[in-house]
Amino acid sequence: MAITLAEAAERAEGALSARLPPEADDPTPLAAAMRYAVTGGGKRVRPFLVYAAGSALGAPLEHLDAPAAAVEFIHAYSLVHDDLPAMDDDDLRRGRPTCHRAFDEATAILAGDALQGLAFSALAEAGALPEVTRLRMVASLSRAAGAEGMVGGQARDINAVGRETDLAGLEAMHRRKTGALIEASARLGGLAAGADDATLGTLERYAAAVGLAFQIQDDILDVVGDTATLGKTGGADAAREKPTYPALLGLEGARERARAMVDDALEALAELGDGAEPLRDLARYVIERDH
Amino acid sequence: MAITLAEAAERAEGALSARLPPEADDPTPLAAAMRYAVTGGGKRVRPFLVYAAGSALGAPLEHLDAPAAAVEFIHAYSLVHDDLPAMDDDDLRRGRPTCHRAFDEATAILAGDALQGLAFSALAEAGALPEVTRLRMVASLSRAAGAEGMVGGQARDINAVGRETDLAGLEAMHRRKTGALIEASARLGGLAAGADDATLGTLERYAAAVGLAFQIQDDILDVVGDTATLGKTGGADAAREKPTYPALLGLEGARERARAMVDDALEALAELGDGAEPLRDLARYVIERDH
Repeated sequence: MAITLAEAAERAEGALSARLPPEADDPTPLAAAMRYAVTGGGKRVRPFLVYAAGSALGAPLEHLDAPAAAVEFIHAYSLVHDDLPAMDDDDLRRGRPTCHRAFDEATAILAGDALQGLAFSALAEAGALPEVTRLRMVASLSRAAGAEGMVGGQARDINAVGRETDLAGLEAMHRRKTGALIEASARLGGLAAGADDATLGTLERYAAAVGLAFQIQDDILDVVGDTATLGKTGGADAAREKPTYPALLGLEGARERARAMVDDALEALAELGDGAEPLRDLARYVIERDH
Repeated sequence: MAITLAEAAERAEGALSARLPPEADDPTPLAAAMRYAVTGGGKRVRPFLVYAAGSALGAPLEHLDAPAAAVEFIHAYSLVHDDLPAMDDDDLRRGRPTCHRAFDEATAILAGDALQGLAFSALAEAGALPEVTRLRMVASLSRAAGAEGMVGGQARDINAVGRETDLAGLEAMHRRKTGALIEASARLGGLAAGADDATLGTLERYAAAVGLAFQIQDDILDVVGDTATLGKTGGADAAREKPTYPALLGLEGARERARAMVDDALEALAELGDGAEPLRDLARYVIERDH
């Protein structure tokens, strides 16, 4: 059961779609904005981590749909809010207008809010999993998404704009802003498989390294990529005076650090067998991708 | 154990404060903005409902702290987001600057986001309660807060501005915007006490009626109250062309409807004994209050 990124993305589409509120029942643009924010592309890295980590440890894919949808709902809501005029003020996301440009700002705020809640509904109602497992997933995901995780990282990010930041400060920000949810994704996969604490720790070490590599590569692509390939505005970080890895380490230094992180990720997986091959593929893909 | 609104509010302060992230650990204004949004007054009606419903059915107060905090975190986050410039654009809340005025818009968006997540953390980590109970609470609260509940109601509210709305449309909006969370508050109290489905239904019928009475009274106070007593801008609904009960039913008609709702609420509680007296007190208070 060696799931690929493309297969996981396709399966995640179904898992997400089945949990979104039907647009026909909604006299407001809310349901449409939620669907818009969740669909329309995206690599579905977080659902992939749920599927790949869970199936590496023997969980059937149908036990992984709810947590896969939950982590992506959190990710999607965070993008909608990060794109808002008061935050990053982005017009383009995945090659399409951002949610507040396609709808309006109030609807985008509400769509993000509803998507966050839907993530926890998805876990709470994951009938294929034991109740105790679902509760542990809620605990992990809510912490990862909150003030000590993703939202705290975004707060650090916007407060860092135009200020001096060192490598430690940059990594502390990224470990929260993107790392926490990526770690939670792998952890949720492990929880669905009934993994013990040691194995959950292995998955989190792997995911933390992959998450940082992913972020470094994002920063590199912002420097070397072009807007058409990225599906978002290239050069945006420098224009906003955001601290980045290439700015702190130089382009080659950043590339080296990303490779070291991928090595860390692969090392963490050493104890896991062939079933973990999709996780290894992801680690390698992260620094090879061009968007 | 006849808890009063003031006692519940004081107990809720402690339950909320214990769960907020420490400001000292946060290099950003996020933790301070979260605390600002949650403290500084408020009647704590939703925590009261948790405490009063739960203790009416025999739950000890310490089993009710986590759900009481959770419903108030959801309420507080919704106020922060509703006050944003893209939504109601309010400068004043409970007599103080709104969160985005005291901090900034980005911080207010993030504080709201983090408070929503914290509500689910509070439930997931409610060690005094069985895991299955906690999970049922997460399921109830996430649905109540989401697109089919509170957020859906706010979407209907902002889409109704300046449009013709009839009484059915107005009630459909309020049942979601404020009613869903008020019902969930009573339900969470019942769940903590191990109530059966029939009793949970009783609590929800009571809370639905109280919630509508509360909303009607809010609309009435917006017409007859003054800004100093309300702690928010009086006459704001009419200025925004928001549909209201007084606009649809006249002031006396609105008062009559609020009284009828209170009667419904009291009737729903008929089967419950003296322990439900605080719930009855709340129903009476709702239409007697002047702010």
